[in-house]
Amino acid sequence: MADSWIEIPSDSDFSLANIPFGVFRPRGKKLDFRLGTRVGDWVLDLAALEREGYLGGLNLPSSTLSAESLNSFIALGKGITKKVRTRLQELLSRENSSESGLEKDLQTQKKAFFKADEVEMKVPVEVGDYTDFYSSKEHATNVGSLFRDPKNALLPNWKHLPVAYHGRSSSLIVSEDSVYRPWGQYKNKDSDLPVFGPSRQIDFELETAFIIGKETQRGYPVPVDEAEDYIFGMVLLNDWSARDIQAWEYVPLGPFLGKNFASSVSPWVITLEALSPFQTEAPPQDPPILDYLKEKQRYSYDISLQIELKPEGDEALEISKTKFQNLYWTQAQQLAHHTINGCNIRVGDLYASGTISGSSRDSFGSLLELCWKGTRPIRWPSGEERCFLEDGDRVIMRGWGEKDRSRVGFGELSGTILPSPVPSFRG
Amino acid sequence: MADSWIEIPSDSDFSLANIPFGVFRPRGKKLDFRLGTRVGDWVLDLAALEREGYLGGLNLPSSTLSAESLNSFIALGKGITKKVRTRLQELLSRENSSESGLEKDLQTQKKAFFKADEVEMKVPVEVGDYTDFYSSKEHATNVGSLFRDPKNALLPNWKHLPVAYHGRSSSLIVSEDSVYRPWGQYKNKDSDLPVFGPSRQIDFELETAFIIGKETQRGYPVPVDEAEDYIFGMVLLNDWSARDIQAWEYVPLGPFLGKNFASSVSPWVITLEALSPFQTEAPPQDPPILDYLKEKQRYSYDISLQIELKPEGDEALEISKTKFQNLYWTQAQQLAHHTINGCNIRVGDLYASGTISGSSRDSFGSLLELCWKGTRPIRWPSGEERCFLEDGDRVIMRGWGEKDRSRVGFGELSGTILPSPVPSFRG
Repeated sequence: MADSWIEIPSDSDFSLANIPFGVFRPRGKKLDFRLGTRVGDWVLDLAALEREGYLGGLNLPSSTLSAESLNSFIALGKGITKKVRTRLQELLSRENSSESGLEKDLQTQKKAFFKADEVEMKVPVEVGDYTDFYSSKEHATNVGSLFRDPKNALLPNWKHLPVAYHGRSSSLIVSEDSVYRPWGQYKNKDSDLPVFGPSRQIDFELETAFIIGKETQRGYPVPVDEAEDYIFGMVLLNDWSARDIQAWEYVPLGPFLGKNFASSVSPWVITLEALSPFQTEAPPQDPPILDYLKEKQRYSYDISLQIELKPEGDEALEISKTKFQNLYWTQAQQLAHHTINGCNIRVGDLYASGTISGSSRDSFGSLLELCWKGTRPIRWPSGEERCFLEDGDRVIMRGWGEKDRSRVGFGELSGTILPSPVPSFRG
Repeated sequence: MADSWIEIPSDSDFSLANIPFGVFRPRGKKLDFRLGTRVGDWVLDLAALEREGYLGGLNLPSSTLSAESLNSFIALGKGITKKVRTRLQELLSRENSSESGLEKDLQTQKKAFFKADEVEMKVPVEVGDYTDFYSSKEHATNVGSLFRDPKNALLPNWKHLPVAYHGRSSSLIVSEDSVYRPWGQYKNKDSDLPVFGPSRQIDFELETAFIIGKETQRGYPVPVDEAEDYIFGMVLLNDWSARDIQAWEYVPLGPFLGKNFASSVSPWVITLEALSPFQTEAPPQDPPILDYLKEKQRYSYDISLQIELKPEGDEALEISKTKFQNLYWTQAQQLAHHTINGCNIRVGDLYASGTISGSSRDSFGSLLELCWKGTRPIRWPSGEERCFLEDGDRVIMRGWGEKDRSRVGFGELSGTILPSPVPSFRG
């Protein structure tokens, strides 16, 4: 990938090879949101670039660029969105600089370029349905060992289908939005009766998620080998969890209030085009799977993932490092399975991976696993300890691919735990 | 309730005491959808009535009445929507007839009145999130007995909280829309390995659902005694289920592809105002519940429910009759619980009751229970038998309240099972 005339730090997730899409507005000004991309430490206003004529000839209805979500832009189809990405790379590349004219057009730059720390981001898509898979074998095995039987940790269906459940769309939030400690019912060990109070076992879950770019009609499954045609791009996702509430409520219909108080996503959607250089082998699958899940070309993506935890007033500690390609089920398999019964999908739908854990303790994707259900605390040099999250704790997730000195990443996904905003709950 | 100058059959669900809200367009004309109400066998176009001046002085932005969903109308708040309902009752009542002028205004009637069988209905709200509860003790007991242990049929949490899970919004359909038989994985009794094929255990589930009329902010629970302020009205819901797919997939995260291929709703939203005359005692609860679920005035609604099943080319048979007030958990308790963790709600959200079963065999709300897991078929005079649904079967659900010769009902919720539309699946 060519250099840019914009200065891009060498460790930036937002190289010219990336060109993600998001929705932003200048911070603190209550202006309208609009579509943008990010390059290095700059956010570029796509609506402004279009108004100034830099996105001409691309068949772009201007309303799609001044919208409050990416949905109508994504719905234009990859035929158009790929061209927009390529055009942006041309406009910003050093070798094309004199041709495009943007480098010298300071007036447009003034209108269209914003410093990344001076904008406010938004959940980038309007999500019709949010589904959460459970596709990491290591995570499912850990959870099965902790809550059921270490000898039969994986349930009989797990290797035959990508297990999943429906999550909550209304409480999807974007990086930097705070998370309020949920109250609810849970059961103490010494009693058969539940008590009511603030959750004492707040956890994070490190996940990625893909976003649907093309709808289907009810009744028509997406074939596994065409699945990526229906995927626009990916984000990071933190599926905040209240383990005590979850443990009491989840039989027989699955997680509910233990999950639906908040799920955070990273603000920039990384396209599959930007991720394609990082395609890599996916884990082998045994026992054999049913035909509708068999991929002619099976692959995953080589994406590094990292979690930091920062207690209020203390330092951030890296507490986990893992890899996306650990996942047993690929995104193509997830989507093929989700639709095999005729369930229809819509542009903007969000499909999360489930917690991504590796096989060693320092690669687990949740505190539940990292601290083995509260028995092995994480320790800070200051003496601070954690098994679950305290008020004021900040969780920071990162993800990126790196190859031949070219880096494409998601940026940061962060969130801080706050006490409930309800006065009677705060005491 | 006064008589109307419109002829309303005495057994109509749509008396002047009802005045439900829905979204329709003249059938077969590809015109725009618009808001309507129903009276007897007539559908009244609210956008047209507004244009002709009959809804003046009500602070109604006209765009809300020519919308594709009820959401913006509902979002105006009960202060306004109640007045619209009262105005419609005034316009249509015999005693007000000369004052309102509508009875004599044949030109407006021509523009605004449509025969009910000449309109096409739509899912009345845009649903952000759809949640399905599990609030019938009889149903949960039956399912627990059939799938787990008859001696411990109810799980330990069931009487302490209204168990629920998130469902799928994209595949919500309206009465008369067909349902395609889902394909998927299930396990035959004699094997440890799943097979792939069309579901052989398609079922219905008789439910009601309430629709949210007022949003909340994340972090702020709805108090149980204020819950009905947040509820606009109710519909019938058929939660189509594929029992074989569900049985194999549902551990540990709950139902997924066994449910999300389709859920049908009735087209007319009955307001809580119209249902208020039918308030009645709700079942007592024992053991005691936590404070946040305790209602100062606990009540349910006296609503009769009925299911008919009509095989193709055969007669419709009434196969179940039950009552809404059988439900152990009230709608107020469901909403208070759903939000106690700070989960925010949005206008148009749909919260279903779960299958409503009574205590006798002829009052169960699903074939699973009516035919006791395939062991006690339903028989037709023709010799036809059913334990699960066959292609061509039509399921018709009805619900109504009746008191002092005044009847308020939901009309019909129907749906027919068709084979998959995918050629390779049809063989």
